[in-house]
This record gives sequence, C-alpha cells and structure tokens, in this order.
Amino acid sequence: MNKIYNPNKESWSEVLKRPTQTVDDIEGIVNEIFNEVSRQGDRAISEYTTRFDGVILENNVVSLEELNSAIKNIPVNLQNAIKLAKTNIEKFHKAQLTNRVEVETINGVSCWQEKRPIEKVGLYIPGGTAPLFSTVLMLAVPAQIAGCKEIVLCSPPNKKGELAPEILFAAQLCGVTKIIKVGGIQAIAGLTFGTEIIPQVYKIFGPGNQFVTVAKQLATKFGVAIDMPAGPSELLVVADDDANASYIASDLLSQAEHGADSQVILVSTSKNLINSVSEEIERQIKELPRQAIAKKAIANSKLIYIENNEFALDLINEYGPEHFIICTKNEDFYINGIANAGSVFIGDYTPESAGDYASGTNHTLPTNGFSKAYSGVNLDSFLKSMTFQKISKDGLLNIGETIELMAEAEGLQAHKNAVSIRLKDIIPAKTGIS
Amino acid sequence: MNKIYNPNKESWSEVLKRPTQTVDDIEGIVNEIFNEVSRQGDRAISEYTTRFDGVILENNVVSLEELNSAIKNIPVNLQNAIKLAKTNIEKFHKAQLTNRVEVETINGVSCWQEKRPIEKVGLYIPGGTAPLFSTVLMLAVPAQIAGCKEIVLCSPPNKKGELAPEILFAAQLCGVTKIIKVGGIQAIAGLTFGTEIIPQVYKIFGPGNQFVTVAKQLATKFGVAIDMPAGPSELLVVADDDANASYIASDLLSQAEHGADSQVILVSTSKNLINSVSEEIERQIKELPRQAIAKKAIANSKLIYIENNEFALDLINEYGPEHFIICTKNEDFYINGIANAGSVFIGDYTPESAGDYASGTNHTLPTNGFSKAYSGVNLDSFLKSMTFQKISKDGLLNIGETIELMAEAEGLQAHKNAVSIRLKDIIPAKTGIS
Repeated sequence: MNKIYNPNKESWSEVLKRPTQTVDDIEGIVNEIFNEVSRQGDRAISEYTTRFDGVILENNVVSLEELNSAIKNIPVNLQNAIKLAKTNIEKFHKAQLTNRVEVETINGVSCWQEKRPIEKVGLYIPGGTAPLFSTVLMLAVPAQIAGCKEIVLCSPPNKKGELAPEILFAAQLCGVTKIIKVGGIQAIAGLTFGTEIIPQVYKIFGPGNQFVTVAKQLATKFGVAIDMPAGPSELLVVADDDANASYIASDLLSQAEHGADSQVILVSTSKNLINSVSEEIERQIKELPRQAIAKKAIANSKLIYIENNEFALDLINEYGPEHFIICTKNEDFYINGIANAGSVFIGDYTPESAGDYASGTNHTLPTNGFSKAYSGVNLDSFLKSMTFQKISKDGLLNIGETIELMAEAEGLQAHKNAVSIRLKDIIPAKTGIS
Repeated sequence: MNKIYNPNKESWSEVLKRPTQTVDDIEGIVNEIFNEVSRQGDRAISEYTTRFDGVILENNVVSLEELNSAIKNIPVNLQNAIKLAKTNIEKFHKAQLTNRVEVETINGVSCWQEKRPIEKVGLYIPGGTAPLFSTVLMLAVPAQIAGCKEIVLCSPPNKKGELAPEILFAAQLCGVTKIIKVGGIQAIAGLTFGTEIIPQVYKIFGPGNQFVTVAKQLATKFGVAIDMPAGPSELLVVADDDANASYIASDLLSQAEHGADSQVILVSTSKNLINSVSEEIERQIKELPRQAIAKKAIANSKLIYIENNEFALDLINEYGPEHFIICTKNEDFYINGIANAGSVFIGDYTPESAGDYASGTNHTLPTNGFSKAYSGVNLDSFLKSMTFQKISKDGLLNIGETIELMAEAEGLQAHKNAVSIRLKDIIPAKTGIS
C-alpha cells in the first residue's frame, strides 16, 4: 500500500484520484442492444440471454414452483439471518416516512407537499459467482414501504437457467411482484421499453458491472429515472493512535475484496497506526479466498498520514467516500464535520459490513465522489414529492397583484391575464358586499 | 384545438403524445464546447460569449456597483411583489425541513439519517427577451434555507453586456454568492469543470433551451448532478360542467404562451364545457402579445371528452402532467387519486400562474411525464441524506452472526472476517465476566 505523508492541498486531487474506467467503448454495444430490444422485445431478450448467459430459457418468469422450492434449499439459520436483516432494514426505512407538509403561506393561500409512491420500479440484482441477495432486501424493502405497485426484479440466470435460491427467498419475503431471469444490458433495456413479459418501469435501481451502469445511463435518455450513477466500491477510514489496527485492516480488506477497482484509504494522525495497519493487511490478506482481487485493490489504495484533524477532515470531504469509518477519540469532530459521505460507521464495533447486511441502513450508496450531491438509496428514493395549492377568493386578492406585476415584468401577459380575469370577478363582488 | 371524444385505452399513448424534439444534432456542438471549456477555461468561455451573445466582456463577474444600481432600476411596487413572493416561497420551503431520523434497530445498534447541504450549487437562469427572475427565487431561496455554501448564478448577458436588473435584485435578496454573466452550453460547461472565474459545482439547477438541456445531461457524465431533465412546459386541466370556461381558457393560454412546443390539455366529462372553452380560447388568444407562439402551442393541444371520472383519472395518470388544475365538484376524487403530477392547482381561484410566482410552491417541475418518477424542485433537492450507525459490543453480538452468515453466503469472506475478528475479542471477554 502507498504511504503518503502530509500531502499538500495542491496534490489532493492527485492523491485522491480514483481508479478510473473508460466507458466509451461500451456505448456501442449498449446502443445496439437497446435498439434491438426496443424493436423486437422478448425475442431480442431471449437471444441476448442465450448469447451472454449461455442458456436457452423457455420461460424467463420465475414460477411459483421455483419460489417454493427455493426456500427448501436455504439452511434455516440463513433464513433467520435474512429475516433479522430484513426486520432491521424495515425499522430504519419505516422511520423515514414523512407527513404531509402544509402551510398557509398568506391568508387564503394553502400549499401542501405530499409524497406519493413511484408506481412501477425495476430492481436489478447482479448474478455472477456470488448471489447478492442482500441487495434484494435493500431495494425491495423500501419499495414495499413506499407503496410501489409494481416491483419488478431482474437478475441473470446461471448456466442451468436458474436464479440463486437466496435471491428468490429474499424477493418473496419483501413483496417483489414479478421476478424475471434476465440480466445485463438487455434487462435494463427491457425495463426501459417494456416487452410483453418485462413491464416498463419508471425508475431502475441497483448495482451492476460497467455494462449495466452504461445501460442505466442510457435509460435516462428515454425518460426512465435511475437511483444513481454507480462506480466501484470504496471505503475511507479515519483513525488515531487509540484505534485497533487489526479491526481497521479487516475493514479495509472487506472493501478491497469487492473488485480489483475498489479503493480503500486510511487517513490517520498517527504514523504508528499506519505502520501497524499496513502490517496487519499483509498478515490478514493471506487468509482470504478472494486475495487475488483484494491484492489488486490494495495496490491502488493509500495510507495517508495527516498531522491535524482539521486538514484530515478537509481531505475527507474533498474525497467524499461512499463508506466512512470513524475510529478516533474525538469522533464527534468527524461526525459533525463530515459533509460528503454515503454512510458513516462509528467506533470500534461498527464494521462496514454491518451496514452491508444488517444494521438497518441502506447499502446502495453514492461512490466516486457522488456523495457530494447524491443521497444513498432511502425511502424517498421510491417516492416523489408533489405540491398542491388551493387559493380562496381572499387568497387571490392577497397575491393577485404580485402575480400580475411579476408576470408582466417577465413579459408573460397570458400569465397575468389568468389572474386578472379572476380578480375582475372578485373585486366588484367584494365592492358590492362592502 | 383538437377535440377528442372518449378515446379508448389503446389510443391513449397516441392521444397523449407530446410534441417531441430530436436532440441528436445538438450533441456535437455541446461536446465541442465542453472540450474547449475543459481545456481552455475562461478563454473559451469568453470566446463563446462573444460568438453566441454578441458581446465582448472584460469582466463577466457582476460587481457590487452593478448590484447597487440594479435596485434603482426596479419600480418599488415590483420590488415589493418580488419580496412578497420570496416570503411565501420561503415559508413553504422552510416548512420542508426535516429532523434527523434515529432508530435503535436492535439493542445496541443505533442508526440515524441526517440531511446535509450540497455545498456548491449552480443556478442557471435563461436570458432572452424576458428575464425569468422568478426562477431565481425558486432556486436560490431553497438553496439558502438548505445551507448551501456556494450558490453560483449564471445567466447570459444581453447585447450591452448586462443582466436584467430584476435578476440581480432577486439574486442578492436570496443570498446568491456569485453572479456570472455567462449563458448557454458554455455556462453549464464552466460549472461542470470550473474555471478561474466560475466555481465548479456539485449540482446544477434551472431551466433552459434545448442546448442547455443537452449540456446538463452531458454534465452528469462528468459526475455533476442535475435537478431533472427538462422539457417544454405543459398543463392539464380537468373540469366538469360547473367549471368556468373563461378561467380555464386563460389558464390553458398561460401555458401555451411559453413556447410553440408547449402542450395544454383539457380533460372534461362535459361536452358543453369543451365547446365553451374552445370558443373562449379563440376569443382570448387575440388579445395576447405572444399570440403567434400561443397559436402554435394550441395547435398541438387537445380537448378530450371522457365519460367518467375513473377513466379520466387513469388517462391523467398515464400522462403525468407538469401542472394539473382541478376544477370539478368532486375535487377530492382527483386530489386523492392523482399519482403522477408536478404541482396541483385546486378550484376556480387557483390559476397555474399563482404557482409560477407567488403561492409559495416551486415552479421548477418535472415535464414530459417525468412526474412519474421525479419530484419537482424542493428543499431536499439541495440536501443529500447521509446515514450513520454506531454499534456497541452488545449490538455486534446481536447482529454479528447474521452478518457472518449472509457474507459467507454471498462469498465475501473478508466481510465476514471484519465481524469475526471483533466477535472473537468480545466473546471471551463476555465469558470472562459472566
């Protein structure tokens, strides 16, 4: 790992540089698949599934039988673990429900804001060697709480044409309404345009590889919203002399095993700690089954010594980490000062993997510095806020002239007229009464 | 205007089709300007300002003198109108502030969600014949309430190299921190990459023509967030026999005057009303200074008769209007049933232009059916929610095994290990005590 001592502010952007990927060469194939799916629907879907997933599916909708047999394939202790995680995620996301906001801004002018569910949402769950069923919980639980009517899950089938039983178990536990065995670009294209089998949705959620990421970005051009732009996973730990080096090493490695392009950073006011963490990583990495991946990520990663906490905080905010662990005596300084981070983990007994699975917070978080502007997935991601207003005659008398003056100054006479035509009816009536 | 009677559900997508624009031919020039601004910074900005706005600016930052002289050019009654509008917008958006959400999901596992401001935001205000100073209020007021540190406003200069005094007045009233005379694609590029003069921002807000819209979309590729994809303005009115045809005609025309590509729709259960509104439009349109524009928009627009309210509501939700006016006896049916709309206006005395200026709601709203997934601009648009968690030893004992089981099932051993390494320390200690 690269050790860096007191980098000056001018060098921060270089020091904090993320391993980048170019996506331009992917756009061709993404455009092609979108075209085909939009033209040929399920026929195209089926062909791409054969081409990319190596399987011919007669029916890509998961049946009730498949759902029922899934549960038999999951050990009871894992079932209970999934249920406990679901309960915690549910508690935290239910607490995020908000009441309608209502204000009479001026006498007779009543305004309110209400959140209503996005009716149709698509959840993308990657396949591959390990089934990421935890992401099913993270997306379907808030979708259900929000009241989304259609919750469509797409995930690529394995060579046998199956989805992992854990994904099926989690999906039915959380109220997913349709599960379709389709992955990659073709899944995103299907959710964007709709086919006979795949419902067209209004917003697409979920992680994925570069192809899925570019496909989601293209979906936005066709009017479909997405949760956020995705990037490789990352973790930044700030720690001082008191912190436990072996815990920190284990956290850094837990992110490093995600992918060769993951990035982990330790920022510390203690040179001793930096050295101990570095040694611990060397020691622990040898035990990992995914050490080949973790080693590549660790090669990209940094141990940064910074003399004082103020500078450290500035640097961390400049980076805007997806996951941010605080293991320092003065933890409140960092809790209060952090402006840009996805999710924050505080103290010795709060490993980042707790948030990945079971603390109750969401693990779909902004990477790549997007925490500067984006929220992680939360209940509001499945709702949109709408405003309402109702104005009485008195209310229009109170703001009518204001509207007329402003509309006129903006050169919008018809905007003014919509008020004047009403005021004309109100004012004589008023005069008549008084 | 096109009158359509009882369209069947299969024809809805055709009936509700929006006037579309192709943007592909714009992408070339947008890419070129982004490249130049990213390479040459202010020099490129200056050249494009000369080319597109026809003015050579020595300094494109608005000075204190310009701000001070602006106020002298605005009649006092307009100043007061702007102040009243600001007060109402402020009241409604302040009411949207939320407290932190805190939950102990299981004993020893404390999770909370907090919203923190997006530190740097860019507000784009179009220029052109009429200065849209109302949009300054709609964007800068919530930005200030949210606590954004840098609020940068860009707007194209006129031929004299000036911004409209109303824009300057509104900007200083609402705490904008820097005002720059730059418009179009080059403004969005400047906010995306930053130049010596234009600060790089994390999120860009505001309306604009097709060029600005495509530029904002390109900005997202460089990691900058945007408020929402923009499209031409639109209004849908639902009204019954009781409604006032001349009010409704005035509302339809107020949206029609925005642009030739605006769309206005009346849905009614009354053929009489449809005929009266049609006649009223013919009558009122003759008085409008912008009748050439309004006429083109009206040509695209529709009067739709639908026999019953249930069908009408379905059709309206299928369309997802930006602005939705309800003038019916059974207004609660539509208020409760509307699933997709930007902002809703209820009753005879609530013209849409009230929301454009002074009721207090925001006028930056999702067009083009985006209300199915997007919120209009609101206080939360200037904040991002972050999550925090702090777990005690007991807490980790309560969820540790759950995390271990799930991580293992996902094949992520290092995620499991980050828990196991801590549990090993906790459990012997526990045993020692008991």
